Amino acid sequence: MAAITDLSTPPRGFPVAEFETRTANAQRAMAERSIDVMLLTTEPEVRYFTGFKTLFWLSPTRPWFVVVPAAGKPVAIIPSIGDSLMSSTWIDDVRVWSSPNPDDDGVSLLVEALRELGGANATIGTPMGPETHIRMPAADFENVRSQLGDANWVDTTDIVSGLRMVKSENEIAKVAHVCRIVSDAFDGLPNLISIGDTEQQAFAKFRIDILQRGADDVPYLVGSTGPGGFDDIIKSPTDRVIGDGDLLLFDTGSVYDGYFSDFDRNFAFGSADDAAKRAYEVVWRSTEAGLAAVKPGATTSDLWRAMMRVIDEEGSPSGKASEAATPKNSVGRMGHGLGMQVTEWPSHTASDDTVLQEGMVLTLEPGYSWAPGKMMVHEENLVVRADGAELLSRRAAPELPVLA
Amino acid sequence: MAAITDLSTPPRGFPVAEFETRTANAQRAMAERSIDVMLLTTEPEVRYFTGFKTLFWLSPTRPWFVVVPAAGKPVAIIPSIGDSLMSSTWIDDVRVWSSPNPDDDGVSLLVEALRELGGANATIGTPMGPETHIRMPAADFENVRSQLGDANWVDTTDIVSGLRMVKSENEIAKVAHVCRIVSDAFDGLPNLISIGDTEQQAFAKFRIDILQRGADDVPYLVGSTGPGGFDDIIKSPTDRVIGDGDLLLFDTGSVYDGYFSDFDRNFAFGSADDAAKRAYEVVWRSTEAGLAAVKPGATTSDLWRAMMRVIDEEGSPSGKASEAATPKNSVGRMGHGLGMQVTEWPSHTASDDTVLQEGMVLTLEPGYSWAPGKMMVHEENLVVRADGAELLSRRAAPELPVLA
Repeated sequence: MAAITDLSTPPRGFPVAEFETRTANAQRAMAERSIDVMLLTTEPEVRYFTGFKTLFWLSPTRPWFVVVPAAGKPVAIIPSIGDSLMSSTWIDDVRVWSSPNPDDDGVSLLVEALRELGGANATIGTPMGPETHIRMPAADFENVRSQLGDANWVDTTDIVSGLRMVKSENEIAKVAHVCRIVSDAFDGLPNLISIGDTEQQAFAKFRIDILQRGADDVPYLVGSTGPGGFDDIIKSPTDRVIGDGDLLLFDTGSVYDGYFSDFDRNFAFGSADDAAKRAYEVVWRSTEAGLAAVKPGATTSDLWRAMMRVIDEEGSPSGKASEAATPKNSVGRMGHGLGMQVTEWPSHTASDDTVLQEGMVLTLEPGYSWAPGKMMVHEENLVVRADGAELLSRRAAPELPVLA
Repeated sequence: MAAITDLSTPPRGFPVAEFETRTANAQRAMAERSIDVMLLTTEPEVRYFTGFKTLFWLSPTRPWFVVVPAAGKPVAIIPSIGDSLMSSTWIDDVRVWSSPNPDDDGVSLLVEALRELGGANATIGTPMGPETHIRMPAADFENVRSQLGDANWVDTTDIVSGLRMVKSENEIAKVAHVCRIVSDAFDGLPNLISIGDTEQQAFAKFRIDILQRGADDVPYLVGSTGPGGFDDIIKSPTDRVIGDGDLLLFDTGSVYDGYFSDFDRNFAFGSADDAAKRAYEVVWRSTEAGLAAVKPGATTSDLWRAMMRVIDEEGSPSGKASEAATPKNSVGRMGHGLGMQVTEWPSHTASDDTVLQEGMVLTLEPGYSWAPGKMMVHEENLVVRADGAELLSRRAAPELPVLA
């Protein structure tokens, strides 16, 4: 298992050739299924094919469309407020309207573009499957479908996920960079947070520290503290004061140039009981087993089984191991893809069965309900290489760190 | 025009009575239209009716559902990873499944709940109009509709927007608090950012400063620098170095306890030409006219006309005023609602015509294309009171601040 050694800051953006490759790969997959055009409405998909990168997506007001034709560059159909930015990308054909316009918020322009680029009786693909949604008003989408009554709509989740799951070296470098920043921040946490801090204060200090170390943003930061443990791993911080004997979990998705890290760390304050220490070691070994199972040709379900075996063997002080150890546990999976979003396809579950390929960036995230109301989750980030896992996060300590 | 004088930090969360009121108001509106149940799938709507607050929504993997019945508390149908957190809210009926499960990602549970709560031949409302989308895979939504073949689906955008547009004093206090933090940060900007900083550095410093002043997060920060001006107001920062004669725009949506500020400020570095100074004053006066027009019973279109009149009277050095001064300008509106999202209904346009009510929290955001490739946008935040606008942001300086 190698570790990333190039510590330089990777350049921002991508060479145009990368967008050309993404588009050509999509068009090859579309041709195989006789799809004439593909409609994309969500931030990561629009960014993936155009390079259009803005926080403006946070505003729900305006829809944005990109149409990938059978050949040639994608076409952007967007609100005029994005004209200048989209025109600065590799896209040539930028069609704009003044939005918001409830009477016709891009519907006419979109219908016209799909007709022009797809032809009569077009087969139109758009992602309609797991982890996707249509980011436009449902009434407008129905209107588009109604106006294109002769079109055949098909689900292209597999095309988009198939492309996005396998990262280029440029993409991997961005994830590696933000993973290094966050690894440094976790290494510095013992000097940053202490007994007596509220959860709010601890979260704020950690977020600011990650930014000071060079991350662009920390969009995702959840965690918990609790005496001897906790079972809520997605909550926002409260005014609760961290005390002696508390466990603390921080799980952050931080960003560099539009690419995420996503890993967590667990700490104890003052002291930890043997059961917590033991639970930590079980989940650490479960992660080791997952890392050892990573290789091209293995499946996400192989990873799931390798991690689960360690937890199953351990059992649980509360006798709840088998509950935690099945897909029915409260997390639902033991890791996932990572890149433009904090979680992406695929999912490590008993039945996912996605075949690992070189260049996939994944998390391993085993969880263990080691006592009633107490859950331990570890997480690491890696890229699949020819000879196995290359860690992008700096490996967690094998024993529960106990802070003064 | 009063200014917020209570500088204390408002408490987090809401009393249960507030969720009861929101739900009762929704149910009254549903009854008027004979709607049996309302389905909600997006973060702000789920949070508005339940208090469920987590950054976990950033993960696109899992759908989340809340169903508002004709009477009684809302019902949550969610992935088991959210069980602990949702069970800590005022909601009693929390139904969970292990997600992700591509074979049935909550579809069966949701169909069952809609049948049980809506009855046979139910009229089911869900937001399908402007500024909304259905946050679940389109194929799953079609599956739900197909399984409930006898149901009548109607758009309830007006019910949700009607409720959310008028804020409670608890909500207003949260927006006011984050507006005060950001106002302080803008006041301190001259000591923070200087010629020689890159855009990246300037953005990072400002983001960290806002966090250090007590904001929970700075999810939205866009802006531009340019010699004498710029025309892209939504872009991410670059490695461009700020130089003498540059204009700088920062526009931030910062957050306290799930509620946003959204206003911007413009600065010049070293020097500014007369045209830029003049443009600044025009947009400042346009904002004044908007503020003076705010009162219960006036409409968003009244605000738009008041702000536009100042810009129309001025004309433009480039002769492009009339282009900038119509709904066809590149922004598309001159302000909007503000609260749980950085932008919300309504929009100040020539034809929006939403009637202002006490308790609405709004931005005023006139934009002026004062020369080719040069746009000036000002923004302030306010709450509509019986006697007019109460500013939540600290009013921008009447003349373009020129920093050393």
